[in-house]
Formats: sequence, structure tokens, C-alpha cells
Amino acid sequence: MNWRARLLALDGMMPALDDTGRLAWGTLADAPDDAELVFLGLDEGKACFAAVPPHGDSRPRMANPALWSLMAALSPEDLALYGGARSLVDWHARHRFCAACGGDTRIAKGGWQRDCPAEQGGCEAQHFPRTDPVTIMLVEHGGKLMLGRGLGWPEGRFSALAGFVEPGESIEEAVAREVLEESGVRVRDVSYVASQPWPFPSQLMIGCHSHADDDVLTIDETEMAEVRWFTRAEVQAALAGEEGAAFTAPPPHAIAHHLLHWWIGA
Amino acid sequence: MNWRARLLALDGMMPALDDTGRLAWGTLADAPDDAELVFLGLDEGKACFAAVPPHGDSRPRMANPALWSLMAALSPEDLALYGGARSLVDWHARHRFCAACGGDTRIAKGGWQRDCPAEQGGCEAQHFPRTDPVTIMLVEHGGKLMLGRGLGWPEGRFSALAGFVEPGESIEEAVAREVLEESGVRVRDVSYVASQPWPFPSQLMIGCHSHADDDVLTIDETEMAEVRWFTRAEVQAALAGEEGAAFTAPPPHAIAHHLLHWWIGA
Repeated sequence: MNWRARLLALDGMMPALDDTGRLAWGTLADAPDDAELVFLGLDEGKACFAAVPPHGDSRPRMANPALWSLMAALSPEDLALYGGARSLVDWHARHRFCAACGGDTRIAKGGWQRDCPAEQGGCEAQHFPRTDPVTIMLVEHGGKLMLGRGLGWPEGRFSALAGFVEPGESIEEAVAREVLEESGVRVRDVSYVASQPWPFPSQLMIGCHSHADDDVLTIDETEMAEVRWFTRAEVQAALAGEEGAAFTAPPPHAIAHHLLHWWIGA
Repeated sequence: MNWRARLLALDGMMPALDDTGRLAWGTLADAPDDAELVFLGLDEGKACFAAVPPHGDSRPRMANPALWSLMAALSPEDLALYGGARSLVDWHARHRFCAACGGDTRIAKGGWQRDCPAEQGGCEAQHFPRTDPVTIMLVEHGGKLMLGRGLGWPEGRFSALAGFVEPGESIEEAVAREVLEESGVRVRDVSYVASQPWPFPSQLMIGCHSHADDDVLTIDETEMAEVRWFTRAEVQAALAGEEGAAFTAPPPHAIAHHLLHWWIGA
């Protein structure tokens, strides 16, 4: 037992908080004897770990209102730490078997790898936590901004369109394909703005800006409930949370919020 | 049988070429009856497919000289098409089992998904092809550029440092961590330059530029054989393939080549 180590307190996949609203920590003694431990890094000379829970959670964040409000309450540092830990332990919980041969795998390299060991009859494949690149993009035309409301989202909540980068695509190609698929609009002059990790389950959000040649929308109704163009004043009012704003803006800890602010200031 | 469909000719994971040096195509009749087919898209009204080979290939490209020279010979369009197809069929070949329960999976959604079917006793998990974001970065100090030679690379071949984005990191954080780990140098002002898919096995290369505060190198000898600073004239000579150049530049189809050109022109 290393007394200089500490264990992130998790209830399933949910973080526990202390009296001050910070992430709660225990010691390695709090983990079951057979727990798989993921090394999260050093903090003030102490090694920080998280234990892999019995089950992961691949749902989008929208499906978990308790987590939604908890994320809004965490400090940026705690949010980043919890996010990274959540992505890792979730991946382990949902990848206990070898995708190459079906055998049992075991945790390796402090939780940054899983091995399919030969001595258990495995195929010796190595597996690594995945991070899925997702483009999220502002589309501008004639001074207005295209935003969408996904199927199942609350009435009035709009955000930037987004979608996974597919094998064989550049970031710029992924932006153009996603916008065309979801809105029917062709974009040009795609530029990078900012990036952010998003742990639901483990995405790298790549924020971009682009220009559209026209504003005629043909919406993909299998994905989007609404896609609309908003004026600068409407985006400003939504970000300010004004009563009667044209839409509800994404929350401050989402990269879409940052992108909208960037657009207002640009 | 759809006569308007065509099948990418593959020998294992290697492409076959026709007399004109283009990718060779056959018909769906060329695939075994039980072949898993991946839909690659439409080309001139014909549906294009590739069949999943018995085995994938997770080696880096450096380990396959035949592929290296073949890639240099393919047109940009064929290279993009082969790259996307290679990433997809390789993923299927190395993910036949469910990582969540160990059961057999089957191909779904035209090859853009694998399912663990309930009627075979599976857990109903869905699996998606992975794309791994990798940062590759120019590091500049006092007008010089930092380049490295990885362990096992040919003598004299240098390229930009690179590394996987880890769960919980932004692109900018990944750049700073990788450069610090591999060279001991701290960077600031990370900016995005360009991106490119890289199908070995399925990476999204994210090219960045950054500035270093000092030029004192502390090399990670478990990853790098050499890390050095090169002048603008040295980079220029290497890109031009001049005899006696200070190093051998990365080949034109690699994003590192594009990044070096960008730096020379900037």
C-alpha cells in the first residue's frame, strides 16, 4: 500500500463530491482487492488512481441530467480530471475482451493499455483506449449563423452541428460532409478555431468555422429536429441568457458555447 | 448481384494495380460467398466495395517497404480511396469479437458498424470503426526547427515529432505534452496548420506549429534515436532532395512534408 497514493471516489461512473464541492478522494484501501486501477497522474507528489467500475456508460451526456448539472458545478480543473478519468475507466469497463480473438484481456501500463496474454491462451494483441475525433462547426452565411437542434433535444436548445471524423477523412473534409448531410448546405474556407476533450464516452471535439455559399436548408430528419439561421443579435441574446432569446445556448463547459462567443467577438 | 457495383482488388491488405498504375477493380463475383463487404461510396454511379481480408495489419508503414513505394506511385485520389478502404477493412479484420462480452460480432450498416447480436446470445453492443487523432508538430526556436529520428528509422531520415492525443486532452495540450516528453522542451502558442488521414492503421494526423522558449534538448531515448535543430536553409535543401542535405525529408504524401513546406513559405 502506497500512502502517497489516492483514489478518485466514484459511485459507478458518477463522481462523489466533498463538502467544498470538489472531487472527493479516498485511499487505495477503498478499492476492492481485485480492482483494476488506472493511473491518472501525479498531483502534489501523490499518485492519483481511479478504479474501473463494473459497468461503463456509453450514453450521450444529454441522457443523464444528474451528470449534466454536476458538470456545471465542478471547477474547470476538476472537470478536466474527472473527464479524463471517466473516459479511461469507461473504456476499460466496456473492453474487457479481446476484439481480435474474443479472449479475456488484462489491464497493463498503468491502465493505458489492455493486453491479451499468451499465457492465458490469448493472441497477444494490445489494445489502447480510444479517443474519437468529432468536428463541431460554425457555418456562416450573410452574417447569420447556422445552428441545429438534434432529435430528442429540449425545445429551443440549439447548438453547432457536429459529427465524427470518419476513416480516410481530413478535418476539413469531415466538416464539409457533415454539414452537407445534416443541412444540405455546401461549405468552403473551413478553418480551425479550438479543441476540447469531451468524455461521453471519449471524444476530441474539434471546433471549426466555415462559410456557406447559400442558405437553402435541406434537413436530415433522421438526425435533426430543426436547423435554422440566427442573427448575431440573436446569438448574443442567447449567450447572455436573456429572457425571450431566440434559443437556449449550450452550457459554458461545452465547446459550442466557446465557439459562439468566438463568433460574436470575431 | 448488382452489376453496377465494383470491388476493390486487394491482395491481403495490399492494393492491386491495373496496367495504367491505377487501383484495380473487380466485380462482387470476385468476393467469396461469405465475404464481409464494406461500402466505400459511389463513383460515377457505381457502388464501390472492399472485402474484409482474413487478417489485418497493424504495423506502422515503415515496416512495409513495398507499401511505402506503392504509396508514392498512387495518384492522390487513389491514395485517398485506398487509405480509407484500408483503414476500414483492417478494423473489421481485427475486431471480429465483441470487446464488451467476447462474443462473435457481425458486420452492419454497410461496414460502418459491427453488432453483437442478441439472437446469437450477444450483448447487443454496437462497435464503430476507430480513428485515432495524432498530433504532429513543428517546434520553432530562434529561426530553427526541431525534427526527430525515431528508433529504428533509417539513418539521416528526420521528421516532425508526433504522438497520439490521449483521453482528456485538447489538441494543444497533446502537442505540449508530446514535445516535452520526447525532447524535454516546453512549447507555447500552439496553432493548427493542416490535417490528413493516415491509414496505418487509421489515424487522423493533426499538424500544428509551436514556439519553444529554449533549445536545450533532453531526449526520450525509449522513443527517439535523435532530436536536432535545423536551419531554414537545411530544411529547404532536404525538401529539394539536394545531395549532401543535412537530412532526408519525409515523402510528399506524408503531412510532415507539407508542414515543412508550409514552414519554409511562412
